[in-house]
Amino acid sequence: MNRKELYKQILQKKSFLCVGLDTDIANIPRFLHEFEYPVFEFNKRIIDSTAPFTIAYKPNSAFYESLGAAGWISLEMTINYIREKHPDLLIIADAKRGDIGNTSKLYAKAFLKDLNVDAITVAPYMGEDSIKPFIDYENKWVILLALTSNKGSDDFQMIKDTESGEYLFEQVIRKSKKWGTPDNMMYVVGATKAEMLTNIRKIIPDHFLLIPGVGAQGGSLTEVADYGITENCGLIVNSSRDIIYADATDQFAVKAGEKAQILQQEMEHILTKKGLLQS
Amino acid sequence: MNRKELYKQILQKKSFLCVGLDTDIANIPRFLHEFEYPVFEFNKRIIDSTAPFTIAYKPNSAFYESLGAAGWISLEMTINYIREKHPDLLIIADAKRGDIGNTSKLYAKAFLKDLNVDAITVAPYMGEDSIKPFIDYENKWVILLALTSNKGSDDFQMIKDTESGEYLFEQVIRKSKKWGTPDNMMYVVGATKAEMLTNIRKIIPDHFLLIPGVGAQGGSLTEVADYGITENCGLIVNSSRDIIYADATDQFAVKAGEKAQILQQEMEHILTKKGLLQS
Repeated sequence: MNRKELYKQILQKKSFLCVGLDTDIANIPRFLHEFEYPVFEFNKRIIDSTAPFTIAYKPNSAFYESLGAAGWISLEMTINYIREKHPDLLIIADAKRGDIGNTSKLYAKAFLKDLNVDAITVAPYMGEDSIKPFIDYENKWVILLALTSNKGSDDFQMIKDTESGEYLFEQVIRKSKKWGTPDNMMYVVGATKAEMLTNIRKIIPDHFLLIPGVGAQGGSLTEVADYGITENCGLIVNSSRDIIYADATDQFAVKAGEKAQILQQEMEHILTKKGLLQS
Repeated sequence: MNRKELYKQILQKKSFLCVGLDTDIANIPRFLHEFEYPVFEFNKRIIDSTAPFTIAYKPNSAFYESLGAAGWISLEMTINYIREKHPDLLIIADAKRGDIGNTSKLYAKAFLKDLNVDAITVAPYMGEDSIKPFIDYENKWVILLALTSNKGSDDFQMIKDTESGEYLFEQVIRKSKKWGTPDNMMYVVGATKAEMLTNIRKIIPDHFLLIPGVGAQGGSLTEVADYGITENCGLIVNSSRDIIYADATDQFAVKAGEKAQILQQEMEHILTKKGLLQS
């Protein structure tokens, strides 16, 4: 999916919501355990109920790997299900991979070719040759960790570079933006750090940002939009736990859909207020 | 495996060699493709021939993930085979994982509990809460990326912190060493950066270092030992491609064993010269 198609999807859905499929088998309703792939069955129902309100899904690989080979199969089934039912949606593997060039090539193959997701999150620590193999895939996206939403983001991402005076995460953005383009790179910026978005937009006015941390982690959607929105929206805001675990009964999917719709409506309001949608 | 047992193994084998099981299915002899799990069959033969000369094995997860669920099974089979045949050897999952605390917990479970490896490599970018869940496993090791062996390591790891004047990788070591102890943390330092080891040893005189990059990537074993060795050795030197792809015929395992033995002999020489082994 290219940037134009992504923006088209945003206008059509009146939403820039991504649903995080962080499906922990310990947290899903009991009746699903009767199936061979309970995590897939959970995801399928969540997807059915939330798809009208979302532009993207983001399964996090940790939740699938924690189930071994069966988890990998559940991940494949989930991706294939989205592809088949909702071919216009962006699928992001939240895998935070990164290794020396030769090895990153294999991660790129595993996710962008074999699993056939549209985008993968990548960790920047190992530098250009660890990231390039992901960027080299046509019509796919690298989403590089810049400023994450967790407490530990202060430990290293906020270190100030002697030479430029910039924070490490700003250096990560400034250097890496030359390795790709706004058509094949995005950045992770946590909603909990919305006040940093003004400076980030000075460095990358056009790139899409993937914003986790709204909801359970405490970030504000309005602030994120105020500081980060662009004329092509430029934002994908993720919500995981707040949506998929909105309810623990067999009504979980209905409730997830309702939660997603509430966020979609807030987003529609923002898109209208910012002049991207006609009111 | 604890630090004492690891050092005991080093003295017994007269070696601090780790064999990297970066097994690319495209690079293994044709006859192995007749088996259901060719990568496992390759690994099994490599393990049989190299085990007398090594103290550790390090499968890199990318090579297994690139085969999907079957790859995950090959990884499990490989780990179980080492456990059964060579219970005294350290098994390192080279996975370079790291995510927000809740999610890192699941990676820790996947690797340290379910796959039951002894150690996992972890990426530091997301800070303390992304690393802690791995450290919290008893009798297991976190091996944190500090200064990697690839070209891209210059991009961010060598950024100088305004406050301390230290490189980012030194800050990573200095901060993170407080999160664990020399009994549950090691660091990755590339052999291609041996000259940095003197300063690193000032920060962490006792921690074990996992050293990739000897051989194919150009690092020197002698230099690494001169700058990095401690009274408990403190070094695990990894070699992957040079050993496992030493030969492409059906003699590959014999040749791999020979290559591993050559490195073991160099290491024995070093250990003796440094006074850790009686000559």
